[in-house]
Amino acid sequence: MSAAPPSPPPHVSAQSLPLAHRLAGKKVLLIGAGSVAHTRLLKLIPTGARVTLISDRVSPAVQRDFLDKGLVARHVAEPWDRAKAAARDPMRGYHLVLITLPRSNQQLSRDIYAFYKCHHGEQQLVNVADEPGLCDFYFGADLVLACEKTPQHAITLSVCSGGGAPRFAALLRDYIQAVLDPMQSTLLAGFAQLSSLRAAIRALPSPESARDIGHRMRWVRHVTDALGLARASRLDVARAVGLYRDTEIGEKQLPGEEEIARLLT
Amino acid sequence: MSAAPPSPPPHVSAQSLPLAHRLAGKKVLLIGAGSVAHTRLLKLIPTGARVTLISDRVSPAVQRDFLDKGLVARHVAEPWDRAKAAARDPMRGYHLVLITLPRSNQQLSRDIYAFYKCHHGEQQLVNVADEPGLCDFYFGADLVLACEKTPQHAITLSVCSGGGAPRFAALLRDYIQAVLDPMQSTLLAGFAQLSSLRAAIRALPSPESARDIGHRMRWVRHVTDALGLARASRLDVARAVGLYRDTEIGEKQLPGEEEIARLLT
Repeated sequence: MSAAPPSPPPHVSAQSLPLAHRLAGKKVLLIGAGSVAHTRLLKLIPTGARVTLISDRVSPAVQRDFLDKGLVARHVAEPWDRAKAAARDPMRGYHLVLITLPRSNQQLSRDIYAFYKCHHGEQQLVNVADEPGLCDFYFGADLVLACEKTPQHAITLSVCSGGGAPRFAALLRDYIQAVLDPMQSTLLAGFAQLSSLRAAIRALPSPESARDIGHRMRWVRHVTDALGLARASRLDVARAVGLYRDTEIGEKQLPGEEEIARLLT
Repeated sequence: MSAAPPSPPPHVSAQSLPLAHRLAGKKVLLIGAGSVAHTRLLKLIPTGARVTLISDRVSPAVQRDFLDKGLVARHVAEPWDRAKAAARDPMRGYHLVLITLPRSNQQLSRDIYAFYKCHHGEQQLVNVADEPGLCDFYFGADLVLACEKTPQHAITLSVCSGGGAPRFAALLRDYIQAVLDPMQSTLLAGFAQLSSLRAAIRALPSPESARDIGHRMRWVRHVTDALGLARASRLDVARAVGLYRDTEIGEKQLPGEEEIARLLT
């Protein structure tokens, strides 16, 4: 039964899958430098991605906010060219290829899409602005909750309409942002404590069997749920690690409400 | 200035970038078939991805919920093997490679990570469960708002802790879900109307210059903002398209509140 011949999965639906990408130091190709490219750069630059921008024409806003500030790793100030593209990067693909040419260049956008798919393989991720059918992924309306001190430790929240109505997604994002605003500092403090707890427990020197991992996951999950969004910020991480070590040696039981309460500062 | 030598982007921070992936019909490789693989499959199968599962051992839950139902495109019921992996897919990569082996196999997980990065190029997306440093992307806690009739037209919402505290992200997702629950049918109806409006306007036969696209985007944005989350569900799409056509020919002005009010059913 396990070795049954492959059968195509039933297309129950075609939901998109949200994934949060780490792009620090990775290559991203952006073709076009108008208003859509500007919105792309606003999202890309804070990730630390190394952006190659191909465009002979550059909008004043892209020039001022990104090129003049040295935030774009490389600017090829020419129209996109097939032969040069083939020579530029014959072996390796990009983490993302973003095409943001004006709609009057629709055929060129489609040719560029086909070129990168052919050149780097079907798995090369490409997004053609304003053409939902030529997008391997969609951008969403994002909300970043980040500590000022450690901006890399952020909770990201993304609302995506799958190319349907991005501005409506942005309104929903704004609504959620307003709801979360009064809780933000509590949320971030709780997130920081639970991240520390998780990293500390993962780093414990005890040899872990597959079963121990299951126990660790259940334990952290249980403690997180018991604390909830409001109380997590008051977690004493060192005491929690101690409690985990004690119960790990023993019966692998999960702490009760009284033990959880003793972990609070 | 545009031709300045490339300079590395300053790593202001390393925020992750949320992207919603269309995976229908695309190849995804999943190595391991335990409890983590089960959570991955719960996310992957509704996207229509073609999952290849490599694992000699399969958990009862994965067997029951996915293999027995024929939802996995291909099951290789053997341990992962370097030579076979190289022979299996010598040219093309996968849209995603997900490694979910027990932590006792940590070195093997790292070897597999290196193999796919080397074999398919740095841009091959890989996620090693429970190893944040070996993840090109993180999974979030997702919320899908979807019409029952047209599940592919969904708003996805994803909360991601960047590998820090996924269960805390899930609690935040649950909180947002509870907040949105009373609004859900209104939100979905509004989303459907605005998606229809946007598609109808994009499909208008008038030749569009770059400037017209700017106008179209400003117009849809303006109408969306003017309607807001609550009123969008009452939009008469045909009347709105008519209004857009009229103003497109004229002075490219944006409709006022009175004109917007006349678009409501």
